[in-house]
Amino acid sequence: MGSGEDGRVAPLRRALDGPWWEARDQVRATLRDPLFAPRYGLTADEQRALTLERLVALAKTDGPAWLFPRAYGGLEDPAAGIAAFEVQAFSDLSLLVKSGVQWGLFGGAVLRLGTARHHQQHLAGIIDGTLLGCFAMTETGHGSDVQSLRTTATYDPATDELVVHTPDDTAAKDYIGNAALHGRLAVVFAQLSTQGEQHGVHAVLVPIRDDAGRPCPGVRIEDDGLKAGLNGVDNGRLLFDHVRVPRDALLDRFGQIADDGTYSSPIDDVSRRFFTMLGTLVQGRVSISGAAVSATKCALTIAVRHGERRRQFTLPGGDDEVPLLDYRAHQRLLLPALATTCALSFAQLVLVQELATVLTAAPDDADARRRLETRAAAMKVATTAHAVRTIQTCREACGGAGYLAVNQLAALRADTDVFATFEGANTVLQQLVAKTLLTRYQAEFGELDARGTVRFVADHVVEAVIERSGARGILQRIADLLPSGDDDHPFDRDRQLALLVWREKHVLDGLARRLRKGVESGRDAFAVVNDAQDHLLLAASAHTDALVLEAFADAVDAIEDDDARALMSKVCDLHALATVERDRAWFLEHGRLTPARSKAVTVAVNDLCAELRPHARVLVDAFGIPDELITAPIAQR
Amino acid sequence: MGSGEDGRVAPLRRALDGPWWEARDQVRATLRDPLFAPRYGLTADEQRALTLERLVALAKTDGPAWLFPRAYGGLEDPAAGIAAFEVQAFSDLSLLVKSGVQWGLFGGAVLRLGTARHHQQHLAGIIDGTLLGCFAMTETGHGSDVQSLRTTATYDPATDELVVHTPDDTAAKDYIGNAALHGRLAVVFAQLSTQGEQHGVHAVLVPIRDDAGRPCPGVRIEDDGLKAGLNGVDNGRLLFDHVRVPRDALLDRFGQIADDGTYSSPIDDVSRRFFTMLGTLVQGRVSISGAAVSATKCALTIAVRHGERRRQFTLPGGDDEVPLLDYRAHQRLLLPALATTCALSFAQLVLVQELATVLTAAPDDADARRRLETRAAAMKVATTAHAVRTIQTCREACGGAGYLAVNQLAALRADTDVFATFEGANTVLQQLVAKTLLTRYQAEFGELDARGTVRFVADHVVEAVIERSGARGILQRIADLLPSGDDDHPFDRDRQLALLVWREKHVLDGLARRLRKGVESGRDAFAVVNDAQDHLLLAASAHTDALVLEAFADAVDAIEDDDARALMSKVCDLHALATVERDRAWFLEHGRLTPARSKAVTVAVNDLCAELRPHARVLVDAFGIPDELITAPIAQR
Repeated sequence: MGSGEDGRVAPLRRALDGPWWEARDQVRATLRDPLFAPRYGLTADEQRALTLERLVALAKTDGPAWLFPRAYGGLEDPAAGIAAFEVQAFSDLSLLVKSGVQWGLFGGAVLRLGTARHHQQHLAGIIDGTLLGCFAMTETGHGSDVQSLRTTATYDPATDELVVHTPDDTAAKDYIGNAALHGRLAVVFAQLSTQGEQHGVHAVLVPIRDDAGRPCPGVRIEDDGLKAGLNGVDNGRLLFDHVRVPRDALLDRFGQIADDGTYSSPIDDVSRRFFTMLGTLVQGRVSISGAAVSATKCALTIAVRHGERRRQFTLPGGDDEVPLLDYRAHQRLLLPALATTCALSFAQLVLVQELATVLTAAPDDADARRRLETRAAAMKVATTAHAVRTIQTCREACGGAGYLAVNQLAALRADTDVFATFEGANTVLQQLVAKTLLTRYQAEFGELDARGTVRFVADHVVEAVIERSGARGILQRIADLLPSGDDDHPFDRDRQLALLVWREKHVLDGLARRLRKGVESGRDAFAVVNDAQDHLLLAASAHTDALVLEAFADAVDAIEDDDARALMSKVCDLHALATVERDRAWFLEHGRLTPARSKAVTVAVNDLCAELRPHARVLVDAFGIPDELITAPIAQR
Repeated sequence: MGSGEDGRVAPLRRALDGPWWEARDQVRATLRDPLFAPRYGLTADEQRALTLERLVALAKTDGPAWLFPRAYGGLEDPAAGIAAFEVQAFSDLSLLVKSGVQWGLFGGAVLRLGTARHHQQHLAGIIDGTLLGCFAMTETGHGSDVQSLRTTATYDPATDELVVHTPDDTAAKDYIGNAALHGRLAVVFAQLSTQGEQHGVHAVLVPIRDDAGRPCPGVRIEDDGLKAGLNGVDNGRLLFDHVRVPRDALLDRFGQIADDGTYSSPIDDVSRRFFTMLGTLVQGRVSISGAAVSATKCALTIAVRHGERRRQFTLPGGDDEVPLLDYRAHQRLLLPALATTCALSFAQLVLVQELATVLTAAPDDADARRRLETRAAAMKVATTAHAVRTIQTCREACGGAGYLAVNQLAALRADTDVFATFEGANTVLQQLVAKTLLTRYQAEFGELDARGTVRFVADHVVEAVIERSGARGILQRIADLLPSGDDDHPFDRDRQLALLVWREKHVLDGLARRLRKGVESGRDAFAVVNDAQDHLLLAASAHTDALVLEAFADAVDAIEDDDARALMSKVCDLHALATVERDRAWFLEHGRLTPARSKAVTVAVNDLCAELRPHARVLVDAFGIPDELITAPIAQR
């Protein structure tokens, strides 16, 4: 970036980078190496080889080390590690996913599900990339419903071994990154049994390839073949035919097998034990959320630069052609998406901060863990859905040129597509979010009459919201702030927040009431929940919308540079109003917008688009994507 | 399809196939040949070679011949030719596009812009595939604004030749199918000048490769390289360095150069001449619209079959896992999209019928041509946007398996992406639609006061709508039919139609008023139109929504089999209500839905989804996609 750069870029970039800006800058510097420059037209085999080469290069940087304890060669700063993943996502997304498998999922499982002997034996090799591994959870027949997976790990006291077995092909471990080519060791999730007793899903370390790269005896490896994108990742299937591993291959932090074959666990309930194990892996979801935001930033950087350069149609009565971004329709495509990308970027900082707190300061705080998991699920859904939508919009906004591989949007689009599916399918995660929001009063359902439940739910939801947004202390003022008339008062930030928080509360209230009523009516439980499924999804997204705007509003307030703050405040307005506009039907249905005010929201979004149009370039510059990674001819400065 | 097939499949399929069902069945039979079976993992070079091989095979069928006059070896049934393209789109979309370039664009331009000597010289070779060609309109610097393209064709009286020239690289012909490898002759659109006078854009036949495949002297050919999809099409750039062609290379139906070098044309106005030429090429847009519907049908066939087979999560208190399609969220993803696909499929039949009428019965009816062009533009936007959205939804509904190339959705997704851009970018086409709707009273603007304009506009719009839907005679009853209260009366078909037609009229009224006011205020014309750009887009989609529902309603009425009609009538309800639900904010804002009724629409959509779920399979079977083309492992019966 040259000396002519707008003075707001630096402070905005610092704000968007957050507390881990130094880690991010370190990774940016790494990615300037030509090894990481975008490449096209490679065969799948060439892509896989290149991705491995890049992974090995990354292993030499601090990136992976941040995620692991000092005792094993790590630097013990997980938030910096997540920040590193996020910046990595400005480059090759196959690399991002492959390193996420290696250091996040595989390494993370060994670290958090294993105990000291596993750490001593494996972590150093995992960090420096000499031991490549797999995270073998998903099965062909069971993707989202992990608890029902069917691979078995049976303790054999005769040999003091675990026997890992795939009962049939639908229980194959599938879509497993690093499986088709490069992985040597796999964390295999399987139904554990000892002494004829079932203990639910546990993780076992199983060697899958020898040093020469040949499958180990009893291990069948299939290649998942070509995919819509991410073809630099060697996804494959793993099947085990009574494969024997020593007893201590069990990652036994949450369930141990004693010398005499007795099973024990600090957590008695099988289901709770399983979800506790899963919970420790929340880091993967946090990383994907951040990566989705980064990929969206790349696409917007390309589309905004193109929208400023590219001119089409002559002004009536003039010779000058009009830059695309001067057209309202084009502004409408890109600028609200740009605003929401900023919103999600700031909300992601809050998520990473929460992760860091749980991993370091509050590892035993179950409530903090639950909040983190809920926020991570909510954010993963919001960021990945936004990425798919926005990158597609950017492609269309760049016309035929956007369809050419050389302009980068094709790969961004294809590679991020599956983000909505892996690390928890979005629809499933949204239900998880909604159910968690409902959980805290579920236990009391039996003891309250219907009206009592409503009051109870309302109290608890309000409490949960206050807990979250206490710093801004806005809740007390919600009632005053909700727009109710058609006066000309422009929406201020607190009113925008009040609207979204009120919706979250109202949707949750209604959902709890509806489920309660269904259960009381004696209807089949599946039918009750299934009928309310769209309501559950709405509850989750209402929650997320409020979370994200809160984070954005707080972040704007914290920007010190006046010009930068003023600009980002407008961006926050655009995000908030575009969110309200998108769901204005709901606000109209629930008496929170009058028809006149609803139309005024649309006018306000149009006006904000026009107002922000001259600043679009400053905003994408503030994303700080190294020029070496934006090679699209249509996006050159 | 076996003997156990549901009795409704055959009559539904006949209805969806329309009058050209025999042509469609003929193409279905062709596509059962193993040559057309889906292939994956090919390099771009292999894909291009395979696509050519398939094109040559198609040239031996009736498909191309239907598009051309009997005098030159054709079969002269353009509607059957479009139907053939539509069925072809069940198979390889690269093939669809490459044959669309060859027979639709290149052949169509020679046929409709050329005269007898061009026909005699070229049509036979075009039909049988021995003369492959290009349609060189788009330039790097000018995509949507074709009228401003900068390639020149200058008449040189000294040699009686035209000199075709590319002034600089931004005037290169770009994204041209058949250019990079296989095309020998190109229809080149260029600014024609004779005797120092400009005559606007005309088409000239320019040889670009000799028989050995080498570029002709003065012709520079570049390869556009890898794309997001459609890599079986050899798109490229063409640049001309003072390339000389004989005078009669000018496709001179709409503009002739006499022996003495004098230019003449049956159409005086340069701009009108240009749009008349473009108008004759409407067939390309009609084909792409149909192909988009077909590709969507493929994706839904795969996703619905998968949704019935695939089970996830056990019922509480049971052992059985639940098929995905039993979940409301899954129904919500797929069934309204399925209903709208049926709607667009029927609306496409009307469009093709209109095209056939204009091409055969009413070639000189300017009004009929204008209506056809408007309908084609509206449909192309609706079908391609629906395809992009729905195929993405299908991919997500098939989870990780949907991301594997072998399950076909990856290619469908990548290949259809650019449909929103080529043959007219969707945003530009929508504005064309809206402007055409406004055109008929534009001339009178100056003579009416503001109130007069409003009345005038309203009258004309109502007239246009009546003209379109006269058969159903519903307009007179609109006022009675518009839902206004919260009574329990279920929406019937006429009420649904009334709602959409009223919106079309209201949006157009408002738009005309707004533009008029803007112009009267003396504001800059660009600013006035640009400020109203989102209003223009809304007017276009409101128009399209009404058109599509009218077509669907008429088609349902025409189904003779009672069971089939009853089922398709429910599908029509779902389409109509999902359309209203999607835009319920607008109806709330404009007093056409009360909050209570708006919520009732959502409930009705949910109920219809549940009601139609058991029939989803019958509906996709009725699309009649040959089993040989649905090879996805997740979609096997």
